[in-house]
Amino acid sequence: MPKQVDHRRRRETIARALWRVVEQRGVTQLTMRVVAQEAGMSLGQLQHYFASRTAMLSFAMDFASEQTSARIRRGLEKLGERPHPRDVLQVTLAEMLPLHADARATSRMSAAYALEALHDDAVHEQARHGIAQGRTLVEQLVRQAIADGHIDTDRDPATETNLLLALTGFTPLIELDVIEPQDALTAIDAHLDRLFRSAVERRPHFSVE
Amino acid sequence: MPKQVDHRRRRETIARALWRVVEQRGVTQLTMRVVAQEAGMSLGQLQHYFASRTAMLSFAMDFASEQTSARIRRGLEKLGERPHPRDVLQVTLAEMLPLHADARATSRMSAAYALEALHDDAVHEQARHGIAQGRTLVEQLVRQAIADGHIDTDRDPATETNLLLALTGFTPLIELDVIEPQDALTAIDAHLDRLFRSAVERRPHFSVE
Repeated sequence: MPKQVDHRRRRETIARALWRVVEQRGVTQLTMRVVAQEAGMSLGQLQHYFASRTAMLSFAMDFASEQTSARIRRGLEKLGERPHPRDVLQVTLAEMLPLHADARATSRMSAAYALEALHDDAVHEQARHGIAQGRTLVEQLVRQAIADGHIDTDRDPATETNLLLALTGFTPLIELDVIEPQDALTAIDAHLDRLFRSAVERRPHFSVE
Repeated sequence: MPKQVDHRRRRETIARALWRVVEQRGVTQLTMRVVAQEAGMSLGQLQHYFASRTAMLSFAMDFASEQTSARIRRGLEKLGERPHPRDVLQVTLAEMLPLHADARATSRMSAAYALEALHDDAVHEQARHGIAQGRTLVEQLVRQAIADGHIDTDRDPATETNLLLALTGFTPLIELDVIEPQDALTAIDAHLDRLFRSAVERRPHFSVE
């Protein structure tokens, strides 16, 4: 195996070990020593791949984002060519919720990371940048949907984008068993239905009522 | 000072010290030793008030919930007697966002607690129970607003309640500087406007269009 690939694989193995520590033991246990143990290597070996806890955490978070993006991409491929923007948003939002093991691991990792960001400027900037990029993509999609007549022109694209992003607020509610996964998906569907139906609803003369 | 009151005050002092640790140093530092230091007491003195880290965390979370409820109550009092349900929801949602120091401290505490809940059944149950109670209150309010004609009868109360709760998803987005506090409030207003306007919109004959 080329050395570069091997290096990357080892780092991914460490990132997954880190996720398991977050998931099973909590961020309190998130030290390099514990992660090394979980990854089945010595602290010295771990330090060969990551010079610091922050560097390790930063990679684990990037890797979590990549995995989430890859899951969304696979979901979108199933929609075929030129998918409807409503379906794109539905797949994207659903993949961000902790509805299966992979999504749970990455969403817990993100929650831990957001908490670290509160008292670490480098982590804060990395987290902000990643989410802001995702936000830009969603806003582009909303603007295009308005231009294409799928969403009513009186909807403000920035506000609608912010509301869509806020729906990731279902994550802790699902994790804490306050809201069932199916009920969260139903609520997201209702929100999207109204967002996309608005373009039709604004034409009362065509109403069947 | 009566002994009971003094005991309670000391526990509140400890809880506030714990919040500061979460806010300034992160959950990784959340040990009894660090909290004792932050509260200006010995580990032995702290253990006089809390037998375990979990007991301390549990009290700090209850206290955070109480403080949030008190802030919401004070906000509602300003609305006068028989406030409009839209205003009640607006005040409640706004007070749950990290828009000022008190709200930030309690919301960071809640985020840390939600993360602890993932690998501690007792914490999970306490967190679930607290949020589920809040959810019930919101659903009662939504049902009453439907009964009183403020919200259209074709809106499903459970789904609308879930969407309102999901809007707490603005918290990490504000904390990470992805969304400005004012833009989050604007988005919440837009959501509430549509929820409450729906009762009128459904009557096309009275439309001015």
